[in-house]
Amino acid sequence: MKQKTLESLFHDGLRDIYYAERKILKALTQLGRGAESEEAKSAFQTHKEETEGQIARLEQIFEMMDKRPRGKTCPAIDGIIEEGEEILEEFKGGPALDAGLIAAAQAVEHYEIARYGTLKRWATVLGMNDAAQLLDETLKEEYATDEKLTKLADDDANRHAVAAE
Amino acid sequence: MKQKTLESLFHDGLRDIYYAERKILKALTQLGRGAESEEAKSAFQTHKEETEGQIARLEQIFEMMDKRPRGKTCPAIDGIIEEGEEILEEFKGGPALDAGLIAAAQAVEHYEIARYGTLKRWATVLGMNDAAQLLDETLKEEYATDEKLTKLADDDANRHAVAAE
Repeated sequence: MKQKTLESLFHDGLRDIYYAERKILKALTQLGRGAESEEAKSAFQTHKEETEGQIARLEQIFEMMDKRPRGKTCPAIDGIIEEGEEILEEFKGGPALDAGLIAAAQAVEHYEIARYGTLKRWATVLGMNDAAQLLDETLKEEYATDEKLTKLADDDANRHAVAAE
Repeated sequence: MKQKTLESLFHDGLRDIYYAERKILKALTQLGRGAESEEAKSAFQTHKEETEGQIARLEQIFEMMDKRPRGKTCPAIDGIIEEGEEILEEFKGGPALDAGLIAAAQAVEHYEIARYGTLKRWATVLGMNDAAQLLDETLKEEYATDEKLTKLADDDANRHAVAAE
């Protein structure tokens, strides 16, 4: 059996997040359709467009490694998205729907922040500086999206939910 | 049907993270046993002790709400932990094991950061200031643990993994 090195860990991680990003792309479409306010709809739409760019960056990294871009089932993102779908179903039509959907999206963001942070550090240690640079660009976008969602929750969705009670 | 308000969203979220924390407690025992280096073992052990305190804080909040502490299955944490177990199995005996386990633990941390951040903001909007204070204490611990794990990866596990290749 081939020894499992940091390079194989990096490749596995890349496949994990590649699968995750494509699931996230679909989930963001659902969130955008389900959200009540225009602000939330638009935030999910913007992040969807960003996600397309993030997938393209991952494909560039696979290419740098001479690997075919291929996902690997990621039970973590499946579970995180499942919880978002539950909220969509249970809170539909109620005042707290957008607050719940924003929370679901932030759980997705933090999954990505954890994974991209790790992958970037592994790429650096492996001397793959171009890959590290691409991963860092995505990481910065994820942090910015998370902050934007916090602001949207604070300024709008949470107050709306509580005012309706 | 009772309308689903921000308070019910908060209560559901509390039950979700209560379930998650108890699963994390078991997972940290596994990670601590599986890790190769003393530094990683000790980091997982410390976080295990912290997790016990975090569970106690959640129980205090249930009590403030006159609710019995009860978990709610959280597919997200189940998936995140499943990925950690895969790494433990696949990378056992190899040089990249600890790097992989630290990454798994950081995915757990970020799930907690997302959830505690949201719950803290909901508690504030709901006027539950004592609960918000407790959630903030846990949130700060999660951020500190995540930073500690990044440092452990950078200083030790990732270099060890790559030096062995």
